[in-house]
Amino acid sequence: MSSFEAISKEIEANKDKFIQRLRDAVEIPSISAEAAHRGDVCKMLNWAQELFQKLGVKCEQKPNGVQTLPDGTTIDLPPILFGQLGSDPNKKTLLVYGHLDVQPAAKSDGWDTEPFQLIEKDGKLFGRGSTDDKGPVIAWANAIETMQKLNVPVPVNIKFVFEGMEESGSEGLDDVLRANKEFLSDVDFTCISDNYWLGKKKPCLTYGLRGISYYTVEVSGVSQDLHSGVYGGAIFEPMNDLIWLMSQLTTVHGQINIPGLSKLVAPVTEEEMKTYETIDFDHDDFRADVGAPKLLKSTKHELLMNRWRFPSLSLHGIEGAFSGPGAKTVIPSKVIGKFSIRTVPDMEPKAVDELVLKYLNDLWAQRGSPNAFKPVALQGGRPWVAEHDHPNFEAGKRAIQKVFGVAPDLTREGGSIPVTLTFQELTGQNVMLLPIGSCNDMAHSQNEKIDVSNYINGTKVLAAYLLELAA
Amino acid sequence: MSSFEAISKEIEANKDKFIQRLRDAVEIPSISAEAAHRGDVCKMLNWAQELFQKLGVKCEQKPNGVQTLPDGTTIDLPPILFGQLGSDPNKKTLLVYGHLDVQPAAKSDGWDTEPFQLIEKDGKLFGRGSTDDKGPVIAWANAIETMQKLNVPVPVNIKFVFEGMEESGSEGLDDVLRANKEFLSDVDFTCISDNYWLGKKKPCLTYGLRGISYYTVEVSGVSQDLHSGVYGGAIFEPMNDLIWLMSQLTTVHGQINIPGLSKLVAPVTEEEMKTYETIDFDHDDFRADVGAPKLLKSTKHELLMNRWRFPSLSLHGIEGAFSGPGAKTVIPSKVIGKFSIRTVPDMEPKAVDELVLKYLNDLWAQRGSPNAFKPVALQGGRPWVAEHDHPNFEAGKRAIQKVFGVAPDLTREGGSIPVTLTFQELTGQNVMLLPIGSCNDMAHSQNEKIDVSNYINGTKVLAAYLLELAA
Repeated sequence: MSSFEAISKEIEANKDKFIQRLRDAVEIPSISAEAAHRGDVCKMLNWAQELFQKLGVKCEQKPNGVQTLPDGTTIDLPPILFGQLGSDPNKKTLLVYGHLDVQPAAKSDGWDTEPFQLIEKDGKLFGRGSTDDKGPVIAWANAIETMQKLNVPVPVNIKFVFEGMEESGSEGLDDVLRANKEFLSDVDFTCISDNYWLGKKKPCLTYGLRGISYYTVEVSGVSQDLHSGVYGGAIFEPMNDLIWLMSQLTTVHGQINIPGLSKLVAPVTEEEMKTYETIDFDHDDFRADVGAPKLLKSTKHELLMNRWRFPSLSLHGIEGAFSGPGAKTVIPSKVIGKFSIRTVPDMEPKAVDELVLKYLNDLWAQRGSPNAFKPVALQGGRPWVAEHDHPNFEAGKRAIQKVFGVAPDLTREGGSIPVTLTFQELTGQNVMLLPIGSCNDMAHSQNEKIDVSNYINGTKVLAAYLLELAA
Repeated sequence: MSSFEAISKEIEANKDKFIQRLRDAVEIPSISAEAAHRGDVCKMLNWAQELFQKLGVKCEQKPNGVQTLPDGTTIDLPPILFGQLGSDPNKKTLLVYGHLDVQPAAKSDGWDTEPFQLIEKDGKLFGRGSTDDKGPVIAWANAIETMQKLNVPVPVNIKFVFEGMEESGSEGLDDVLRANKEFLSDVDFTCISDNYWLGKKKPCLTYGLRGISYYTVEVSGVSQDLHSGVYGGAIFEPMNDLIWLMSQLTTVHGQINIPGLSKLVAPVTEEEMKTYETIDFDHDDFRADVGAPKLLKSTKHELLMNRWRFPSLSLHGIEGAFSGPGAKTVIPSKVIGKFSIRTVPDMEPKAVDELVLKYLNDLWAQRGSPNAFKPVALQGGRPWVAEHDHPNFEAGKRAIQKVFGVAPDLTREGGSIPVTLTFQELTGQNVMLLPIGSCNDMAHSQNEKIDVSNYINGTKVLAAYLLELAA
């Protein structure tokens, strides 16, 4: 029996113990968004520290800064938990990131069970944080514990960064990481398990995330909101101008009208095209899940590329106009339209901003309105893409092949996980997203769960990955 | 000395008494929008009843229905105060309408003085309700009282309808009027003093009001709001469709794109064009007051006609989209756009609805979106126009000429006063709007006032009008 087979067997044998471990973690309501639960976030970090220390991980809680609450009062941010297992200069060093805070949850939100109790039903473990991200964090401990028990040496040094504010914008994390650069200086690979399989059956590795560039366009024309009876027909209405501007940004088919933008997009390679062929994704299932009558693209690979590989532009709303129910006869005096572009490699935020602002200015000149116009590019986030033929990904692929007997799908995601970029930048090395949960785990929603099989097989994948990293 | 000269002198002599009368009325905070003040509205109606009863007016409070508050509880609507002075079958009968409720007001809203105390400063009487509409209502009592004091017979029978819910949509008024049709059956003329001079110096008589047709357009495409990172590029975004639809309604110059709509508008007559020539209205003053860089029309008569004489279309807002400050990355699942058309004679609401809905449906077909689309014509209000060469208006013109030494401007207004149409319909006779306050009285706003000269001269005009009606 190979060491992996022995590990795999031992993990299966300890299933109940590992589930109990997740149960204990779920019972700590470490909600980062609610100041009243800040103590629970710290409790959760301490709980994890204790768990990892038992495995010989040297832990240190790095103080984070202070958070200013909406009412102006301040509260300490939870510390960042740094850990280190092994410091053999002859071994490669893996960086693992995870978060221990969770989204708010209450039974009254529509949960079928108590969100802060882990309930096993039909092979699923329901509970807030089960999949996002306590399950994956604990899976690392489970994997290492199993290897140690079987005297299988962990063949890499591991550094851990666990935080407690991810669900609240990872407040302070970047500052702490930049202030502790030396901790990351010898990292060779990074692995983050904080996303999900694309489907329900087939595992994947994620090598790309879109970025975002967010814009506001303000149009103002009169000194205060006006009565449409008295002033309708007298003034150039700002809302009229803004709506027209916003209507010029995309076609009905979602194509972006901004000249030059598509030229910033890295060309699609033949090799890349091939990765879509085997991907576990059903176009019609997806359409039904979203409740859409029709999607922008009718084939699997076109649709996935539209979500991951090409930019999209969404109109989010208008500030300053009437937004309530009923019929109000107001002419808004100042309206602010909001839209954003999900960006992809090689779209540099600065280049995107330049094209967008130029287009908006050109449109405005074309409009010929006497009103005042102010387009603003808000700070956005860069897209991320990693080389997936890198030894880090190769180790991940082999680990998944060992556990599941299939090659993982190579996926991207349409949203962003900003810390991915921070780690890539600070370590200068490859970052891989290795999801454990399934697409229907309902992270952030009611009835969040992780399948027992995903949790246990995920633990096996992590152990296999550690072995493969040194292979 | 003619009887009018004697009346005019006596009104001047009683200036302080009349101001004190208005002061007493302003001190009753008869805010119809706030249920907590319902008692004050009734108190105000009783106060007015006492005032008019002293002049021999036979008063009766007609019970109104019940109002359902937003929390589902119900509260009695204030009664409608009916009054009658004289019933001589040989005299003509005048109907007078006014309202005794006011808009909410608080010093913290930005008033320089206590809103429910009448403060005299620089020839102006500041206080909530001073001009809208307590001052004009009391002016009727002042005029009648003065005539009686001087033994000048009131040469017409007068019927009064005073309500206490005008600032809250005149809830129940139409029902009470229709249930008491016989009270209105012998009315020969109606006079309403619940609007304002077009300018600050020259009085006017108002013979037209625009109507309103209000529309909502709902576009929906997915079962719930979505994350623009995950779903941007996958779905036909409803907001994208709606914004485009709304952009097709008007040109930058406010011209309405709905085919056939302009053909519904009654042609402008030469005689009507002439009325604009002498009107007291300054284009640039108006522009500066509104704080607009430029207006839709550059000449006085074009601008006034655009506000009174031609329809206008305003975009009011969108329900269901992100309307808060900041940057939210949502794809709204269902958005409801709102716009309205201010209508003019001869635009029948039904004909307008037909054209608007046809245009929206045509646009939708042209759009070719797979999303769901639902345009709705909400109940609107008809435009109103009266013949201003009618004896009612002629009496008004002569009365104003007597007091001010000038012929009044003949004006329309862009908004609507629905009760005007109700009276015209129920009496079958001419209705005239005779404003007493000035364009800068700030009704509904902070620092509402009526100029002492407008209040006192307005009282004289009403007395002169009563005399002229029988001339």
